[in-house]
Amino acid sequence: MASRSRVSLALRKTRISPASTSKLFRPLIQARYQSTATTEDTEGIAKGTTGTSKTIKFTSETYPSIKRDSKFAQITEEHVNHFKQLLGAESAVIDGVTKDATDDLEPFNGDWMRKYRGHTKLVLKPGSTEEVSNVLKYCNDNMLAVVPQGGNSGLVGGSVPVFDEIVINMSRMNQIRSFDEISGTLVVDAGVILEVADGYLGERGHIFPLDLGAKGSCHIGGNVATNAGGLRLLRYGSLHGSVLGIEAVLPDGTIVDDLSKLRKNNTGYDLKQLFIGAEGTIGIITGISVLCPQRSSAINVAFFGLESYEKVQLAFKEAKGQLSEILSAFELMDSHSQDLVHNVTKNKRPLESEHPFYCLIETSGSNSEHDNEKLEKFLEYVMENDIVSDGVVAQDSTQVKSLWGWREGIPECLGHWGGVYKYDLSIPIAELYDLVNETRDKITAAGLLGDTPDHPVVGVVGYGHMGDSNLHLNIATRRYDKSVEKVLEPFVYEWIAKRSGSISAEHGLGLAKKNYIGYSRSQTMIGLMKQIKNLYDPVCLPPPFSYDMSGNEVNGIMNPYKYI
Amino acid sequence: MASRSRVSLALRKTRISPASTSKLFRPLIQARYQSTATTEDTEGIAKGTTGTSKTIKFTSETYPSIKRDSKFAQITEEHVNHFKQLLGAESAVIDGVTKDATDDLEPFNGDWMRKYRGHTKLVLKPGSTEEVSNVLKYCNDNMLAVVPQGGNSGLVGGSVPVFDEIVINMSRMNQIRSFDEISGTLVVDAGVILEVADGYLGERGHIFPLDLGAKGSCHIGGNVATNAGGLRLLRYGSLHGSVLGIEAVLPDGTIVDDLSKLRKNNTGYDLKQLFIGAEGTIGIITGISVLCPQRSSAINVAFFGLESYEKVQLAFKEAKGQLSEILSAFELMDSHSQDLVHNVTKNKRPLESEHPFYCLIETSGSNSEHDNEKLEKFLEYVMENDIVSDGVVAQDSTQVKSLWGWREGIPECLGHWGGVYKYDLSIPIAELYDLVNETRDKITAAGLLGDTPDHPVVGVVGYGHMGDSNLHLNIATRRYDKSVEKVLEPFVYEWIAKRSGSISAEHGLGLAKKNYIGYSRSQTMIGLMKQIKNLYDPVCLPPPFSYDMSGNEVNGIMNPYKYI
Repeated sequence: MASRSRVSLALRKTRISPASTSKLFRPLIQARYQSTATTEDTEGIAKGTTGTSKTIKFTSETYPSIKRDSKFAQITEEHVNHFKQLLGAESAVIDGVTKDATDDLEPFNGDWMRKYRGHTKLVLKPGSTEEVSNVLKYCNDNMLAVVPQGGNSGLVGGSVPVFDEIVINMSRMNQIRSFDEISGTLVVDAGVILEVADGYLGERGHIFPLDLGAKGSCHIGGNVATNAGGLRLLRYGSLHGSVLGIEAVLPDGTIVDDLSKLRKNNTGYDLKQLFIGAEGTIGIITGISVLCPQRSSAINVAFFGLESYEKVQLAFKEAKGQLSEILSAFELMDSHSQDLVHNVTKNKRPLESEHPFYCLIETSGSNSEHDNEKLEKFLEYVMENDIVSDGVVAQDSTQVKSLWGWREGIPECLGHWGGVYKYDLSIPIAELYDLVNETRDKITAAGLLGDTPDHPVVGVVGYGHMGDSNLHLNIATRRYDKSVEKVLEPFVYEWIAKRSGSISAEHGLGLAKKNYIGYSRSQTMIGLMKQIKNLYDPVCLPPPFSYDMSGNEVNGIMNPYKYI
Repeated sequence: MASRSRVSLALRKTRISPASTSKLFRPLIQARYQSTATTEDTEGIAKGTTGTSKTIKFTSETYPSIKRDSKFAQITEEHVNHFKQLLGAESAVIDGVTKDATDDLEPFNGDWMRKYRGHTKLVLKPGSTEEVSNVLKYCNDNMLAVVPQGGNSGLVGGSVPVFDEIVINMSRMNQIRSFDEISGTLVVDAGVILEVADGYLGERGHIFPLDLGAKGSCHIGGNVATNAGGLRLLRYGSLHGSVLGIEAVLPDGTIVDDLSKLRKNNTGYDLKQLFIGAEGTIGIITGISVLCPQRSSAINVAFFGLESYEKVQLAFKEAKGQLSEILSAFELMDSHSQDLVHNVTKNKRPLESEHPFYCLIETSGSNSEHDNEKLEKFLEYVMENDIVSDGVVAQDSTQVKSLWGWREGIPECLGHWGGVYKYDLSIPIAELYDLVNETRDKITAAGLLGDTPDHPVVGVVGYGHMGDSNLHLNIATRRYDKSVEKVLEPFVYEWIAKRSGSISAEHGLGLAKKNYIGYSRSQTMIGLMKQIKNLYDPVCLPPPFSYDMSGNEVNGIMNPYKYI
């Protein structure tokens, strides 16, 4: 009974009111195909985003300094015929070499943010690991560059060609191979869509240990190749821990058969880890074995207002301590981001009062009564200790969605005025928000921020995955203006470098951040990374690095012009 | 109130009785130094274990086929003087080259299981990363082989020399570098003892995400180098997920500065993963950054009897589902193991009735009332559905220790009669116990198992970390008998290979399992692993592999004769 009386107290003290039930946003999955504006997984750097009506500019025009490497062969009719024979199925080859297929090729040439566009004339869709092996070996033997492509939902231009690289699209490898309900081990083809796998698991009481906005289209192979972070990382950890095994194909056709289903296996170097986050630069992932947790039956979401970033940190520490094993998300949003969301959606705000900071907390557990009690106790504590000023708890799944909308809707709303400069950063937690303040100060001092059309900047906002120390710094603009970029760069990167942060917390390098890795990694580390690239798929050709361990020549054909 | 009445029902139906409070075993940490018999972390292959009184046989005599590689230089007085100058401190060099220091060197030459013994005449104890770098560079330049050594608590002979390799002992690098209470990120020197780090974290409301019997002596650097599994893996995952950064030194002296404190950092290949589980064959880990979870305030332990392995699997599935986020251990013990423990300790058994299988479940959570309720509900379910036949729940921390004793005491008790053949295996969970039955049948059929002294085998037992699908198959013997080994090998390895299991789930390869890796890895994988070894520390000398990326010669000096 003691805990019950505490609950009532908490309810009174926290002035918890039913959350707005209005539908704030279209489902995120749909939004991806309807707009160039951004959803949860679009928090990369998108400069001068253009409207849907315009044709995407070729990457080769945007980045004129990148030249096609003349060592790569031009694709001929002979090559195409060979691939048609190799893959058999008519639908496995989109051939723009021997005929005009521009429209069919366009979805594979461009990214969904409409920022990158390549010139490929050939898309191959292998249907098995053996076919991937045959294709890659032939490409390597014939000096044909390739770009591996999953759901093509990346943010840094990693999954589309720059020039005429052959697109190896994995969508035909879409089978769930096996699932063990006792151990929770799922084995899938690389081309299985994340949402399909999660749905399959849901019917069996499990979840995929990764969740992100693009789940309706992204491939698990692509998630692993880019080491996707997303919404469940705080709870279920990174893919480096949950992926148990990988099957991949090296450029010389070698099949890396490391598809272990075992949770423990200390027999030699853990090579599969190199493919997690390699962005298709050393091989193509064809199969994944992953440990999937039990699905939680109880989900709670609370939304708070706080008066300072110091209090946000205190709230996070308390949430970790008190909500402990049931805490599944702790998201941060500043008032600037919420003002812009409100400005666009006109939806009723979750809290009546306004605060400099807001946090969204999600709990997932196996017992809703227990979880409610823990959450209420936590609420009571943070209210009584003046850590949190006001709060609201979702009463049903509609309200859960509504509260999440104030967090997940930020990227889309920021795109409302035009372009958005986006930085996906990892920063030691104590200093995380300082960057947003400093950036806003600089933009303001330069006279660039204002409510009137003569100011290019609409707002400088900070939000992100507090639980992972992952800040999304976004600068919403009315138009492209070189003076804004001059204030931002290299300032932001240098600020990150000084604090040993990461210039790409979860989105990877691709083409967009290839030249900025030096801000997050030492020359020694970059050198060691190039050594790995050279081991599997040499880009520089002096011996000893143009032959693999079997003496086969390898030629740097994997996803060129990108990564490191 | 509904849940309360269910609890009473459970208590009645399960015949839960207070567990025996007798102290079953000395603390495991002490046991390590007092006996050759095994504690939790000794479940490797220990053939023909000898008593404490005998001198350890030299590895070079046990394995006469391994010859000292003549490419390595003999250590001279000049080398020793150089190291003395390099390391400064008198205590940093144990010099058996210019004088007799056999007694001082002995603890560094032999392993604690008394199975492996080397011939080193020089132990170096660098005090900083720079000193490690200087030492390794000099060794590499002078073709001096080395063996990195942490707490020397390994089970496969990986941390002691085979011949005269120089021991680089990390015990002087024992500082906790930093801890961030908000994020839970701990940064330590490699030589910090696991228990010291865990104690430090305990005072700050956190725990180290790894626990094992040797924690009083093992180094965190050694844990990471061997990818230690242990008792908390079911809950907190593997080190591949929790280690955020590594600082290491390559044989040419290069310092790998990958000591990130960030949870997310997608900027290039995740090279630190190669050092996790590399057993000191490509470099020496000098610093580690690791994400540490909050310490749970509530711990519960229950002990059950079950009638079949099928029911064990059902109980595990239910525990995962119902105990979900608070389940922290699910350990399996067969009746044979418990009979032998009882035979040695004479302690009162936790349950009055006897059963073919026993399980120990541990929960760790933030709210003891909630955890108790979940556990009782689970108990009620498994009893009512005839999954579990009888059970007992610990009432206090003494009983928690007592129940754990029936699991953790197995290795020590098995050593009571003489030697123990030990296999540390990972097997798809459905077939996990089949191997124990088949092995016992074969040993029985060969007439080797019996209660009388003319039978070499006392018992064939299975136990282990059910939650990780990790079986410890142990064969307790009265004496070394070649006929036992002939029944066991290659039978056990072939059985594992057929089921794509692992011949070393958590103990690594070292010297003991170097020649068996082919049962768990394909020739392709072994080839790719050798490529990694050759990249950092070439063992075979044909070009291109005797120079690193900077053009420095490297010579295969890192922990030779072991691993792959």
